[in-house]
Amino acid sequence: MKPKILLFLLIIPIVLSANIKLQEHPRLLLTHADVQDIKQNLNDAPLFFASYKMVKDEIDDILNLSMDVPMPKDAGGGYTHERHKQNYKEMMNAGALYQISGEEKYAIFVREMLKKYAEMYPGLPLHPVTRSNYRGKIFWQGLNESVWLVYAAQAYDCIYDFLTIEEREYIENRLFYPIAEFLTKDNLSTFNRIHNHGTWAVVAVGMIGYAMGNKDLIDKSLYGFYKNGQGGYLAQINQLFSPDGYFTEGPYYQRYALHPFITFARTIDNNQPELDIFGYKDGVLLKAVASQLQLADSNGLFFYLNDALEKTWHSEELVYALDIAYSKNPDGYKSFLSIAKEQDRVILTGDGMKVARAINNKEDNTFRSRSVLLKDGAKGDEGAVAILRAENEDETTVVFKYTSHGLSHGHFDKLSISFYDQGNNILQDYGAVRFLNIEQKNGGHYLPENDSFAKQTVAHNTIVIDKQSHYNGDINISENFSPKHLFFIQKENMVAAAAEDSTAYLGIKLNRKVAIVEDSNFECPVLIDIFTVSGKSEHTLDLPFYFKGQLIGANFTYKRHLDSQQVFGDENGYQHLWLEAEGKSDLPVSSLTFLNGNRFYSLTTNVTPETELFLTRIGANDPNFNLRNDQMYMLRDHNKSERTYVTILEPHGEFNPIKEYTVSSYPKIKNIEIVDNKRDSSTLILNLTSGGSVKIEIGNRKDSM
Amino acid sequence: MKPKILLFLLIIPIVLSANIKLQEHPRLLLTHADVQDIKQNLNDAPLFFASYKMVKDEIDDILNLSMDVPMPKDAGGGYTHERHKQNYKEMMNAGALYQISGEEKYAIFVREMLKKYAEMYPGLPLHPVTRSNYRGKIFWQGLNESVWLVYAAQAYDCIYDFLTIEEREYIENRLFYPIAEFLTKDNLSTFNRIHNHGTWAVVAVGMIGYAMGNKDLIDKSLYGFYKNGQGGYLAQINQLFSPDGYFTEGPYYQRYALHPFITFARTIDNNQPELDIFGYKDGVLLKAVASQLQLADSNGLFFYLNDALEKTWHSEELVYALDIAYSKNPDGYKSFLSIAKEQDRVILTGDGMKVARAINNKEDNTFRSRSVLLKDGAKGDEGAVAILRAENEDETTVVFKYTSHGLSHGHFDKLSISFYDQGNNILQDYGAVRFLNIEQKNGGHYLPENDSFAKQTVAHNTIVIDKQSHYNGDINISENFSPKHLFFIQKENMVAAAAEDSTAYLGIKLNRKVAIVEDSNFECPVLIDIFTVSGKSEHTLDLPFYFKGQLIGANFTYKRHLDSQQVFGDENGYQHLWLEAEGKSDLPVSSLTFLNGNRFYSLTTNVTPETELFLTRIGANDPNFNLRNDQMYMLRDHNKSERTYVTILEPHGEFNPIKEYTVSSYPKIKNIEIVDNKRDSSTLILNLTSGGSVKIEIGNRKDSM
Repeated sequence: MKPKILLFLLIIPIVLSANIKLQEHPRLLLTHADVQDIKQNLNDAPLFFASYKMVKDEIDDILNLSMDVPMPKDAGGGYTHERHKQNYKEMMNAGALYQISGEEKYAIFVREMLKKYAEMYPGLPLHPVTRSNYRGKIFWQGLNESVWLVYAAQAYDCIYDFLTIEEREYIENRLFYPIAEFLTKDNLSTFNRIHNHGTWAVVAVGMIGYAMGNKDLIDKSLYGFYKNGQGGYLAQINQLFSPDGYFTEGPYYQRYALHPFITFARTIDNNQPELDIFGYKDGVLLKAVASQLQLADSNGLFFYLNDALEKTWHSEELVYALDIAYSKNPDGYKSFLSIAKEQDRVILTGDGMKVARAINNKEDNTFRSRSVLLKDGAKGDEGAVAILRAENEDETTVVFKYTSHGLSHGHFDKLSISFYDQGNNILQDYGAVRFLNIEQKNGGHYLPENDSFAKQTVAHNTIVIDKQSHYNGDINISENFSPKHLFFIQKENMVAAAAEDSTAYLGIKLNRKVAIVEDSNFECPVLIDIFTVSGKSEHTLDLPFYFKGQLIGANFTYKRHLDSQQVFGDENGYQHLWLEAEGKSDLPVSSLTFLNGNRFYSLTTNVTPETELFLTRIGANDPNFNLRNDQMYMLRDHNKSERTYVTILEPHGEFNPIKEYTVSSYPKIKNIEIVDNKRDSSTLILNLTSGGSVKIEIGNRKDSM
Repeated sequence: MKPKILLFLLIIPIVLSANIKLQEHPRLLLTHADVQDIKQNLNDAPLFFASYKMVKDEIDDILNLSMDVPMPKDAGGGYTHERHKQNYKEMMNAGALYQISGEEKYAIFVREMLKKYAEMYPGLPLHPVTRSNYRGKIFWQGLNESVWLVYAAQAYDCIYDFLTIEEREYIENRLFYPIAEFLTKDNLSTFNRIHNHGTWAVVAVGMIGYAMGNKDLIDKSLYGFYKNGQGGYLAQINQLFSPDGYFTEGPYYQRYALHPFITFARTIDNNQPELDIFGYKDGVLLKAVASQLQLADSNGLFFYLNDALEKTWHSEELVYALDIAYSKNPDGYKSFLSIAKEQDRVILTGDGMKVARAINNKEDNTFRSRSVLLKDGAKGDEGAVAILRAENEDETTVVFKYTSHGLSHGHFDKLSISFYDQGNNILQDYGAVRFLNIEQKNGGHYLPENDSFAKQTVAHNTIVIDKQSHYNGDINISENFSPKHLFFIQKENMVAAAAEDSTAYLGIKLNRKVAIVEDSNFECPVLIDIFTVSGKSEHTLDLPFYFKGQLIGANFTYKRHLDSQQVFGDENGYQHLWLEAEGKSDLPVSSLTFLNGNRFYSLTTNVTPETELFLTRIGANDPNFNLRNDQMYMLRDHNKSERTYVTILEPHGEFNPIKEYTVSSYPKIKNIEIVDNKRDSSTLILNLTSGGSVKIEIGNRKDSM
């Protein structure tokens, strides 16, 4: 990664030379000018008014309760943890209410709470919970400490002019400077680290820097502790976002990162418009907001790539991101308004006001998901996520991931796929093993099975060779490599992508071509998956499919283990799978049918009589029931140096228990012929049970790239 | 059961003496008078018009296709099965369209199809699929043959006047009389059997009897093959419905039965109003419609009692039932209109017209579920289903089942409970093991695991003694007994029911009191479950809870089987459970917490250090993956002659992954004291982790009965 840092150093001096002329208070996300505008236009923006009213009602209730700033004690999910989280939200909201309503009770609330924190903070040791390598003082994780400061800085900014000089000094000297010192000097390696912990730290320090008008903190925030651009906000943007606006940790953390990235960009833009931060790196921050919306299923649920949990368009970060992005580019992002309407609230700033007024003026377009290639890597040359969508009502979607590792939250999942249809996840990526904020589950932190299962290659819909994870599961090796993007094409009736990798397994080349094809022989768009393995020596090849649904039938016989069940393997994630059943097929293709929602799905793959077919279930070696007990279907071939798996995932038929009918519960494909299979093109013939056949050609030199 | 039949014989002669003066055609569900009314008022009833339009569009499309009346071959889900089902629906709809529109093309369609059937039928052998004891000719089950006739009779009735005498004779002599003969004489035991197969058979014969004006068939239909009241429609009503309108097979089959019962009642009422069929047995048919609506969760999904699959208020049978019931009692059933609106369609008869007009006139009230006791048995003395509901937004509901066996679809589930909250099933009754109409799954028929697992006692949330099912799993014994109802009380903040049984296990008395209690110490209404076993000798007691959700934590240590897993038992359903983990508790109560939706649930039960605590999962000995792999938690005590289990199911807290907070993930109950426990009253003290305590008194002599 070194060369990249040097590259961006070249940009820095220009920026460093700029003078900072700060605005009057408030000046962070909500500005003095915004406040005047909001007061005048509240009646033309019902959604803003409703959002304001919601926050006001909540805070008015809270003003009647006694304030609690407890001595830090608990991990995530515990009382003190949740209380301090609540506190920073309440402070920020009360600050905004003070500005908008002018009522002093809100400012007093913020002042009193900040004073309590200021009273406590200097005496605080490191948090007693020692679970994190990056401990905070108020929280068990330094990360939460940064988040606290991002909110508290906004609260402070809003009441700055309300405080006496003595009060400001008390709060700044006992609270804000010590926290800033803690986040910068005491945790220097995190502060300068290119990672979401680093992002939050630089943004927190920058926000309080702007709030207090401290150029030193602002510069550290923008350019790193040594102000040389090797760390800091700009370096984070440079390295964490690809030119397409893909965040290297994946959509779950992209969403999380958008909050500090976008809110701080807005703060910088309000105070140093000359930096043109939203235009920085070809406008990558706004692109990141747009790409985030594509990284979701038809319910707005973000794809489960890398360490991911349930998050949607409705997450608070997206309210910030959409409001600010729309406000910066209202002509380009009219469709964001339709999502803002679904979110049913706006942020209490000038940007939220613009969104609310635009909605009131019916300026919105409907947001549409589309097929998109999002390249990974600071320069866009470290693989990609290809999202292939059929343009149908069911929003049939394949997510094909061949990105770089994705930092500490990355999985060993090169060339893996997941599949969505009718708003349901049909082939799943497990995501993370974690129950956020649930104390009983390791304090809400990642669980051991996240490393031992979810990150392993066998936990993904991609080939595993010799039962080893990619790069032998070593992140230090993995983070140096990424697959090579081959093509992304969109034609009538087809969208396809391909990638190859020769680094995940030594001496083995993996080539995967994935397409969604619409053909009149099939009721629904089908997924075509051509996975070619070429090696010099012989290996065991495992191809897992984590299908979701009730198993309905198979065209091969299998034997289920009836009264005793064993683990499927010893390590690399296999130790978390129960072997439920095994079989082989006499036919040229194996076919497995399952039911999800009211639709059948069949996975049909070319096999030989030696191909072993397994049905497994997640859940072995899981002493605390941390895993979901989902099923997996696997094809295994032994002693292969070359093998091309062609799998068709065919959605078909309908099961209607209410109206009591079933149609087309069997797949249509009888055989798969590989006519031609090159690096960047393949031709197949699918023979149908009806007697007909379909010729499929994926990729070719002319269309490629 | 013999004594009951004698009782009802006394009623019959009065009815038999009545003369039949039939109306002009059509005269079944849709009458000549209805047609005139519909034609005049189509514009005042948008929902009727929309329903008519939907059917018309569908049939207009079909008129362009070639008609197929294939030689019967397939079981449920297969082509010929589904085609014949489709045919009868199309005929009925085309018949109604002919009447309403007057367009002859619809009549011609029905005529041609009936002629094709008439051509084929006399040559048909029994259906080649031999899976049923009651085989049809067009269908593999005689049941479907009856259903076919119910629809075809209506189609025929609608085009009767359009046909020439020769055409009528051809169709009647080659088709309808032979089918009627097949259903009556050839399958006499079913025709006279008190069971849903019998219901459909008598109704089918009655409908075609009215359509053809054949008094012999009508009388056989009403009074049984020998016209003596030992079989037939009236006997079916007498014996299958309790005075509260509970159908002895349970809600899934009650829904199914409502269709023939209600539609035939409407037909009788249209032609022999003097029978006052809707007033028969104190208006039990209308009561059955009303009770059916109470037998559903807050999504309108019918409770999974006995052999049950997914069915809702939207099922076609309910469209018929609500429209006809409303029309017979518009003042009493205004709230049915709100459900009819959700159904978004009406039947194409005068009753549908009334509903549509009432909706257009905004005469609807909102339907509300409530706590209700539905006694079982022809005389209401064979146990009951008690549905206990908290009057909260979450519609917290306990279903407590202590009915009679419920004929061939009954389960060995005496005194079992299930629990619903926030529209989710929290403690489940498995229902049936069957995939309706899916050919791969045994032709859509019941699967072997339905008998070996789903019907067994251990598949239910009730006590199992010595690992045996109730009555040793023998329906011939079970059907002679039912539990004794003790009380059903509704007070402020509490609704409770109790029952006892001393027949399911020889020499053992089971007493269960179930309550939903609202108390300010708990955020949500809690389920209180007091289950007392008293025997003369020592036994092994198993108390299973089929909880649904992710296991979060327990207050006891358990050891999970990590790399090898064994079956939990050998027979009586135990052979279908994997033993996942086992533990014991040092504390006076065991507590297990799981997450369902965004809410935590804890099951807290009084235990001794010897009580064994098991976590099991359904799925062993299931060679074809027919079962759902759901979890079960079980308490087991050995060598007990007396034991009272008090279990509190406490919903608590909130897990919000989108907004990233968790509150109250631990249960509040620390200890349970049984202060007093009599047959019809119990007093408990619940000690809370907060230090406080709650006294709970359930039942007392004054309130009881």
